[in-house]
Amino acid sequence: VISKLPQTGTTIFTTMSALAAEHGAINLSQGFPDYDCSPKLVELVHKAMQNGHNQYAPMAGVMALREQIAIKTEKLYGAQYNPESEITITAGGTQAVFTAISAVIHPNDEVIIFEPAYDCYAPAIKLMGGVVKSLELEPPNYRIPWEMVKRLITNKTRMIILNSPHNPTATILSREDIDELSALVKNQDILILSDEVYEHLVFDGQEHHSMARYPELQQRSLIIASFGKTFHATGWKMGYCLAPAYLTAEFRKIHQFLVFSVNTPLQYAIAEYLKDENTYLNLPGFFQEKRDYFRKGLEQSRFQLLPCAGSYFQSVTYDAITDEKDTDFAIRLTKEIGVAAIPVSAFYRKGTDRHVLRFCFAKRQETLDKAVDRLIKV
Amino acid sequence: VISKLPQTGTTIFTTMSALAAEHGAINLSQGFPDYDCSPKLVELVHKAMQNGHNQYAPMAGVMALREQIAIKTEKLYGAQYNPESEITITAGGTQAVFTAISAVIHPNDEVIIFEPAYDCYAPAIKLMGGVVKSLELEPPNYRIPWEMVKRLITNKTRMIILNSPHNPTATILSREDIDELSALVKNQDILILSDEVYEHLVFDGQEHHSMARYPELQQRSLIIASFGKTFHATGWKMGYCLAPAYLTAEFRKIHQFLVFSVNTPLQYAIAEYLKDENTYLNLPGFFQEKRDYFRKGLEQSRFQLLPCAGSYFQSVTYDAITDEKDTDFAIRLTKEIGVAAIPVSAFYRKGTDRHVLRFCFAKRQETLDKAVDRLIKV
Ligand SMILES: CSCCC(=O)C(=O)O
Ligand SMILES: CSCCC(=O)C(=O)O
Repeated sequence: VISKLPQTGTTIFTTMSALAAEHGAINLSQGFPDYDCSPKLVELVHKAMQNGHNQYAPMAGVMALREQIAIKTEKLYGAQYNPESEITITAGGTQAVFTAISAVIHPNDEVIIFEPAYDCYAPAIKLMGGVVKSLELEPPNYRIPWEMVKRLITNKTRMIILNSPHNPTATILSREDIDELSALVKNQDILILSDEVYEHLVFDGQEHHSMARYPELQQRSLIIASFGKTFHATGWKMGYCLAPAYLTAEFRKIHQFLVFSVNTPLQYAIAEYLKDENTYLNLPGFFQEKRDYFRKGLEQSRFQLLPCAGSYFQSVTYDAITDEKDTDFAIRLTKEIGVAAIPVSAFYRKGTDRHVLRFCFAKRQETLDKAVDRLIKV
Repeated sequence: VISKLPQTGTTIFTTMSALAAEHGAINLSQGFPDYDCSPKLVELVHKAMQNGHNQYAPMAGVMALREQIAIKTEKLYGAQYNPESEITITAGGTQAVFTAISAVIHPNDEVIIFEPAYDCYAPAIKLMGGVVKSLELEPPNYRIPWEMVKRLITNKTRMIILNSPHNPTATILSREDIDELSALVKNQDILILSDEVYEHLVFDGQEHHSMARYPELQQRSLIIASFGKTFHATGWKMGYCLAPAYLTAEFRKIHQFLVFSVNTPLQYAIAEYLKDENTYLNLPGFFQEKRDYFRKGLEQSRFQLLPCAGSYFQSVTYDAITDEKDTDFAIRLTKEIGVAAIPVSAFYRKGTDRHVLRFCFAKRQETLDKAVDRLIKV
């Protein structure tokens, strides 16, 4: 068969997690917690299953869950989404991203992405016959150069993909970014795909600039969120897409043939869980503590810390240690030192290597301790 | 925005289930049981969650589950699939179908489908730029006219989609069909997408002719299966794709960007459940009893029963009652008689109306009794 994605191998997340397992290394590569989700949530799923919520959910999701999402979105971002026509439950953030791209990208449409970028954007665009226009951002701050974005725009530009807090660079969009973006898209026929799966992981008292906050952006945005990231249950695979009705209508046309509906008992459980007002209260603090702890540990090492404003990733450069390629160094770290990280070159289509590694710090303190102990020996 | 699927409205399943709910009708439209899945399975999910299986599963699925599927496939169909490279767990049968089509259909590739057809095939083909070549089958027997299929084949034919047991017509492929199909594809560069989600629902001692049984077909087939249909838990959204390694490699390239992985605790639970040798033992008998019960009831009515060899659907014609369009009649039945069915015209892209309604008999005896009581009054 002729491959649809000839350049695609196995994702770096699969590769590094497998290598970590093989060598018994501490796995700080793939982004998932090594502690458990709330037992309360587990009991709510059990209850939903015992109550017989085991058959097809409505295509767009269980209404009680969509209603809770609407309430939360209004509370957090002051935005009103109609559960009936503007909220769709998905099998995780990745499915939502793929569906959003499939729903609006036609052959030859251009999509602007910023690299390093999470690895599912470009393949989805290419599968739809779209053209990826990418801009590489510069460490250590990875700011978006809006002047250069402007020059990338043509009459074929259909979408800009944003991701804040950002995986892997841990940057967040600022108010200035929002202003630049607003000026840029004004009077243009350009949509925004806003991957906000780390929305609750913003540190140092900063606020998350969700597209939902800004009406002129909101009305052209598909916003992606993830319960797996938020509730420490990445294996549950549940997320959602917020979008104005005209975009949700297109999103659902694809969603209904791509997956039809998503897991029913989990939806009932999460709906119930979200009724607790305090659900999101402690999240930034919880992760900021981990970030600070991990950074403090790494300060004793020869790695150089890059800034970390959000997400649960900490990037480092390592020029004081070696001039190896980041993939080679990541493999060696896993095998010889016993700590697995993601080489950030995997987030560039061209494999651009800026000698940056990404560590996931969504781990128990003991795990971070052990990892730091090993890393300071490098 | 310009729609990617301009002809697509809401699926008939959503429409009819909503109408049934609105009018308090007995819902024999959308295909799902109104009894519950095994409590043992529920407890196994609970146990998996309590045991901390709540983070990302491997991209292709939990190995223990893939191994159980390999064992089962060998036992049932004498076929060997390598869990490492030939089995992928999906978020239900629909996701598997969409992914399979996305993985191999290039722009202008032709795909042969038989109508009436489940409604997710054609949109997926069109999204990939493929061309749907469809053949309408004739009630009451809906046999595939292989001579006509042969005439549809061109050098652009890339795939034939089969579905046995068949939704909505309840036919099954025969040994003769297999021979015709084998002769047809021999020495041709044509793949088979075999939707076998009702594999265990074959009646009257007949056998299910899985593509897995026939090496010359197996090596060009993507076979789709569904735990939701098999274990009375359609809301769990878990299925899988069996395909030789060269096809699985392409399937997973899409799968990893479309959903990445699927629900972890469910996979552990189903893996455990499948270890019980008797898991599949009673399925055909269980559903055959329901079929016979429902048919016996309907024999007292003015509906004419079409044959039902497999699946959990019973189709009827109604020319002795009315000459209304099937959609109009289905709506009227729901509103006035209190029984919802699927008008089979929804399974034809052109809306071909052969005055056929489809009832789902995967229901408790009381439900079937009540439905029959109402239907015999028509
Ligand atoms: C879907 S696997 C990768 C998880 C993740 O978000 C990451 O590690 O970047
Ligand atoms: C995915 S909803 C439809 C369920 C089903 O298989 C059917 O009713 O045909």
